[in-house]
Amino acid sequence: MKTAAGLLLSAIELDRASPLPLYRQLYLQIRKQILNGRMQGGVRLPSTRTLSHELGLSRITILNAFDQLIAEGFLASRTGAGTYVGSEWESRGGQAEQQQPPPRLSDLSQSMLSLRSDHFRGISYADWDPATPTSFLPSHSTYEAFPQAVWRRLMNQHLLKPTKAMLGYGELQGLHALRSAIAEYVFDARGIDCEAGQVVIVSGAQQAFNLLGMLLLNPQDNVWMEDPGHIAARIALQAQGARVTALRVDPDGIDVEQGLSECPEARLVFCTPSRQHPLGVTLSYARRQALIDWAAQQQSWIIEDDCDSELRYSGRLLPALYALDQMARVIYVGTFSKVLFPSLRLGYVILPPALVEPFCTLRAVMDRSPPTLLQATTADFMAQGHFIGHIRRIRGLYKARQQALIEQLELQVGGFFTLTPADAGMHLIAWLPTHLSDADIARQLAEHGIHTYPLSDYSIAHAQPPALLIGFAGTPENQAATRVEALARALRALGYLPGSA
Amino acid sequence: MKTAAGLLLSAIELDRASPLPLYRQLYLQIRKQILNGRMQGGVRLPSTRTLSHELGLSRITILNAFDQLIAEGFLASRTGAGTYVGSEWESRGGQAEQQQPPPRLSDLSQSMLSLRSDHFRGISYADWDPATPTSFLPSHSTYEAFPQAVWRRLMNQHLLKPTKAMLGYGELQGLHALRSAIAEYVFDARGIDCEAGQVVIVSGAQQAFNLLGMLLLNPQDNVWMEDPGHIAARIALQAQGARVTALRVDPDGIDVEQGLSECPEARLVFCTPSRQHPLGVTLSYARRQALIDWAAQQQSWIIEDDCDSELRYSGRLLPALYALDQMARVIYVGTFSKVLFPSLRLGYVILPPALVEPFCTLRAVMDRSPPTLLQATTADFMAQGHFIGHIRRIRGLYKARQQALIEQLELQVGGFFTLTPADAGMHLIAWLPTHLSDADIARQLAEHGIHTYPLSDYSIAHAQPPALLIGFAGTPENQAATRVEALARALRALGYLPGSA
Repeated sequence: MKTAAGLLLSAIELDRASPLPLYRQLYLQIRKQILNGRMQGGVRLPSTRTLSHELGLSRITILNAFDQLIAEGFLASRTGAGTYVGSEWESRGGQAEQQQPPPRLSDLSQSMLSLRSDHFRGISYADWDPATPTSFLPSHSTYEAFPQAVWRRLMNQHLLKPTKAMLGYGELQGLHALRSAIAEYVFDARGIDCEAGQVVIVSGAQQAFNLLGMLLLNPQDNVWMEDPGHIAARIALQAQGARVTALRVDPDGIDVEQGLSECPEARLVFCTPSRQHPLGVTLSYARRQALIDWAAQQQSWIIEDDCDSELRYSGRLLPALYALDQMARVIYVGTFSKVLFPSLRLGYVILPPALVEPFCTLRAVMDRSPPTLLQATTADFMAQGHFIGHIRRIRGLYKARQQALIEQLELQVGGFFTLTPADAGMHLIAWLPTHLSDADIARQLAEHGIHTYPLSDYSIAHAQPPALLIGFAGTPENQAATRVEALARALRALGYLPGSA
Repeated sequence: MKTAAGLLLSAIELDRASPLPLYRQLYLQIRKQILNGRMQGGVRLPSTRTLSHELGLSRITILNAFDQLIAEGFLASRTGAGTYVGSEWESRGGQAEQQQPPPRLSDLSQSMLSLRSDHFRGISYADWDPATPTSFLPSHSTYEAFPQAVWRRLMNQHLLKPTKAMLGYGELQGLHALRSAIAEYVFDARGIDCEAGQVVIVSGAQQAFNLLGMLLLNPQDNVWMEDPGHIAARIALQAQGARVTALRVDPDGIDVEQGLSECPEARLVFCTPSRQHPLGVTLSYARRQALIDWAAQQQSWIIEDDCDSELRYSGRLLPALYALDQMARVIYVGTFSKVLFPSLRLGYVILPPALVEPFCTLRAVMDRSPPTLLQATTADFMAQGHFIGHIRRIRGLYKARQQALIEQLELQVGGFFTLTPADAGMHLIAWLPTHLSDADIARQLAEHGIHTYPLSDYSIAHAQPPALLIGFAGTPENQAATRVEALARALRALGYLPGSA
């Protein structure tokens, strides 16, 4: 008993400053020792007198703790014989230590674990970490340019009083004010003529892809994907059991001819017409018509991820597929992650009328509408013209940043890279000497704290020449020189450039 | 040509006050008429001179619009012969009018559409609508009691400067500060001893149920569910193809014996031990042990939806299954929707260590971490003690509201209802005369603007006596009399109570 008592006493630490009452602290600590097996079933506890003496607590305090532990079956008191740890704890101690077999997971999650490339994890981790050093991650953008003061002012207007409208469950489809602002914006910016009733607010493009996959795809259904193409979108559709037909991407965009010859019966195509992800080409007008005609004839669906249509620096922006389509086969997906900020977690889907109700039902099963406060603030931000102004600002900013970065890359590592400037978006493509592996180089650079993505990560069936995606949006002009210097130093250290680090 | 010209001119409305340049307005409006088929391919446009005269625009403005439309293939100009609508628009007009077949959806979404009861839609709609009249919806809570001033102050501390930490992609698993605060809270409140590393932030309990279903279930896997039980959770698991074994609920909670005899090999059990949803009973200590022993032996999983453990008014709160389990088979799900507010869209999952990595991977495929701003504010709210204080306040508030509502129900409709007060949560059960249909009565009351839920909506295989779930959290004491009056009036009008409306 001594040992047990000593064990108990030694382990108990009371914080007299804590708002937690002492009896509650004692209760929790004794319970914890029973739960983690340190105090075995049948072990007798020190008397309340001993405890009150040793711990400097009143006996009432100790009795309060004991009473609750007894009521909950942790302790048992045998009249005259004192208080014991409940016998049901007999066998349990130690088991926690036993080796457990690896958990059995669903086939779905197994397949996702295998589908998920390290690159995909890279997005999730390297980018959020404020400690991430010199980084050319394409998803890196500029945060210091965000009009925080305006944003704060607009948000505070919705923080004055606690109202049901702001705190309660939001509109399933998304806040009407935001859906209207989006409908107006896409008409002006993309020639898309839709009602607010066709717009559904989601927590970002990725949620949209998943919901659309669930809504439209059966296992074994065929889908056309751009190759190289959007990794997360592909995983989302594959997670529904879709079979991917990987279509080449040429200077005109996705190769529709290949799709028509290899798999005309596909259920849907996922494409990024405004700026092909990741190569950056624009889907030609003829290809747009070809996709639309195919979808109309096959009654198939087109998921139009219009990413970076807002961030175009050169070349012309063609009308959205959604605007060209007369047969309601196009589903348009937009996001605020790039033009506002990622942590806003707001995106939108513009649906053909026939899909609105089923999409919303599915959405209600999976999740609810995003936080109303953020939707309302974004709606005001758009309605008051700040959105357009901000897009114009960062477009100019990113254009200048790309130029500055390209100059420095040409200057410091020009011989090594062959650069394709981007007409749109947040990254350029730096082609490597063809005998090298972009995956190796990206990994080695990451070890030197230089983060890029290898183009090969995006490839499905058609190998590309080796290249790195180099994000420029996150690199202010006045830092371009030093950051590229760090890159050059790493390349020298790795022996890819002449001269030593 | 005249007609086309007339048509065009009549349809164009220029807003000289708009920030949108006039050439852009003209461009958009002509494009819209081509896209919606009002202007067919081949149609000749009025000359720039005519347009400039009719519309009172400079010819430069008109030429700017034409140039862009020509560049994008909407218009074609034939030297000497003027400007025409591009011929590719020939065939398209009108097609939009054609009848479309109903869209083909995935089997998954078909089944969800069928699974989703009107009740489930009820949650989504009736509750958010600020116009919803006198309502006893269980999900209705008090918003006026939320400490908005504190919340606003804490939030504003994170709105001062635009930082990568606040605006960029958040930690995939959720903000560390919030996960730590939760780990501390569940230890103090529920005796759960876990690391912040086992906590994953989700956008609410519903997202957790869906992710867990995907993570752990294969089609045809068996799951134990409480009957009556949580509707949305059941749909989430059924959406993964799970077969539901519906276990009776008695005063000790879910009938484990029935599960052991009918389907011992089930992959998981979903249960609500602290307050069975919807009946409100507490899972007995013995049943908790039985569940844990079964899960350990079968290597099955227990999803513990600990709903309303914070809102307990009487009877004792037993330790969480997670705290009792030594074999790491329990997955604990908590939400802030009820104790803070639904539109916060924050909940959490506490996982056995072996499931953290796979869960986070799946989560990264489905969605990202919720908005950092809201996570950070919630973390501060907890760390600074406001959370515990708020829970204590609303617990007292709801307890008083239930008492007031029960008094009024006894007083005004006592003969009709047999009331079971709730030990916890936000609704009580009002049993009806056994010959009546609770679904009918709930529907009829809704038509009179009185919103309740029928108990039968929650039943799976075992019919319950008819009853209504009557939420009390949303009814201030001083409104109880008038709201119950409205209820009584409706019941009289419907002929369920003597006397006429």
